[in-house]
Amino acid sequence: MKRLVRFGVSLDHHLLDDFDRLISGKNYTSRSEALRDLIRDNLVGQEWDENKETVGTITIVYDHHVHDLTEKLTDLQHRYHRLILSAMHVHLDHDSCLEVLVVRGKGSEIKRVADTLIATKGVKHGKLTMTTTGKGLG
Amino acid sequence: MKRLVRFGVSLDHHLLDDFDRLISGKNYTSRSEALRDLIRDNLVGQEWDENKETVGTITIVYDHHVHDLTEKLTDLQHRYHRLILSAMHVHLDHDSCLEVLVVRGKGSEIKRVADTLIATKGVKHGKLTMTTTGKGLG
Amino acid sequence: MKRLVRFGVSLDHHLLDDFDRLISGKNYTSRSEALRDLIRDNLVGQEWDENKETVGTITIVYDHHVHDLTEKLTDLQHRYHRLILSAMHVHLDHDSCLEVLVVRGKGSEIKRVADTLIATKGVKHGKLTMTTTGKGLG
Amino acid sequence: MKRLVRFGVSLDHHLLDDFDRLISGKNYTSRSEALRDLIRDNLVGQEWDENKETVGTITIVYDHHVHDLTEKLTDLQHRYHRLILSAMHVHLDHDSCLEVLVVRGKGSEIKRVADTLIATKGVKHGKLTMTTTGKGLG
Repeated sequence: MKRLVRFGVSLDHHLLDDFDRLISGKNYTSRSEALRDLIRDNLVGQEWDENKETVGTITIVYDHHVHDLTEKLTDLQHRYHRLILSAMHVHLDHDSCLEVLVVRGKGSEIKRVADTLIATKGVKHGKLTMTTTGKGLG
Repeated sequence: MKRLVRFGVSLDHHLLDDFDRLISGKNYTSRSEALRDLIRDNLVGQEWDENKETVGTITIVYDHHVHDLTEKLTDLQHRYHRLILSAMHVHLDHDSCLEVLVVRGKGSEIKRVADTLIATKGVKHGKLTMTTTGKGLG
Repeated sequence: MKRLVRFGVSLDHHLLDDFDRLISGKNYTSRSEALRDLIRDNLVGQEWDENKETVGTITIVYDHHVHDLTEKLTDLQHRYHRLILSAMHVHLDHDSCLEVLVVRGKGSEIKRVADTLIATKGVKHGKLTMTTTGKGLG
Repeated sequence: MKRLVRFGVSLDHHLLDDFDRLISGKNYTSRSEALRDLIRDNLVGQEWDENKETVGTITIVYDHHVHDLTEKLTDLQHRYHRLILSAMHVHLDHDSCLEVLVVRGKGSEIKRVADTLIATKGVKHGKLTMTTTGKGLG
């Protein structure tokens, strides 16, 4: 069950003015929402540091004309199918494909999948994004 | 047309040993491939710094039980539909959803879409990943 | 003149518990102090994005036995003396030196100094750290 | 003893053109030097991941008018004196001071010192920069 608690924060009025300007530029509608985001982002970083079960997205851009590359990437994804929740493929242009995988597991396992995909010859760019299962991040 | 060129790199043998160990740990099969990845990652960073046309993925995790949240996120995505190439939705558990959008445009436009989605009340965690159209990243 | 203002933040009690654990692990004595740090770190990032006058530290590690390197680094520092407030030198071992410079200027100027020093042949590792003049960060 | 080895790297000529433009913008005088820097920066990241003995700099900006702050920071530095190699103090203006510490130890120990100093009430901004002892980074 969700239960909201409320507490007071005190800070210098100059600092608050600057923060209000920053968050309105980012389209936040309340300070609480902006502060919750800062807090949750810190907690997500800790989830990954502590190698807990978590969620990441792996983004790769590659040229599908490279011989055998599509097969190799598909094979790798099957080898790790237990960790990969879902995948999406986008045709960027005649040559370039972008693929995003949503991966769930321990931080270290997700990193291994990302390293392997990104190191595959023909993959032009790859990035691991660390996010969260959302559990407990009320 | 692709044309491979070859050039020599000189470095200390200790440094090369350490690098070889590092890249074999990451499953690279050749030094050239590992170095190309380091080079391309630097170039992608520059594409974003220079606000060129580029590609990013926006990952958000949210609780679909939050009142009106799904509608709000859908509305926002329609407002920016010109930039959003594709979207994928994953049900993480009873409450939490993960959504990944692939977005193409100037770096500053993609950042605005990401800021707006991440700032939406009820979105627990959001991240923008900077990648590339793949053009010219031979 | 400093003037403290106080406002309320509301969040889920699970999130607050996790945050309290996180910040006590980092030795914070109050939530307000931890939140002020998150806020100020965001504002510092924006100072650099907007190319305002700011402060950075440039850390380089190099081998002082490399021919002419010390002279070259000294020359470079003199060329940019208007921006460099101070420098400290640490002898790490028989070969390696660490130097930290405190640099004040527009973000883009500080980056140029950092790029030039880090690119100098013989500098093994270099990093730019973005911090702040402290003005207005009440 | 240093021993230079030389090996060939092959890449697409477009990629090489872009890389040459990038590194000349950063004042590199040779591709080898730029590639060595990319390699060493990767190795430094790994040193920290593996919690080996390493070196970092901790930068803090604070208002020396805050009651007891200077004493508290000095006390903390003495408590960790075994790890702190050197410190430099810069007066940014009438109120703000910047201090840079060079710290040597295991990555986790250095992080603890940084967390404690940054969390101290009155410290406006703090950053840990991960660098290296330079050993083996030929």
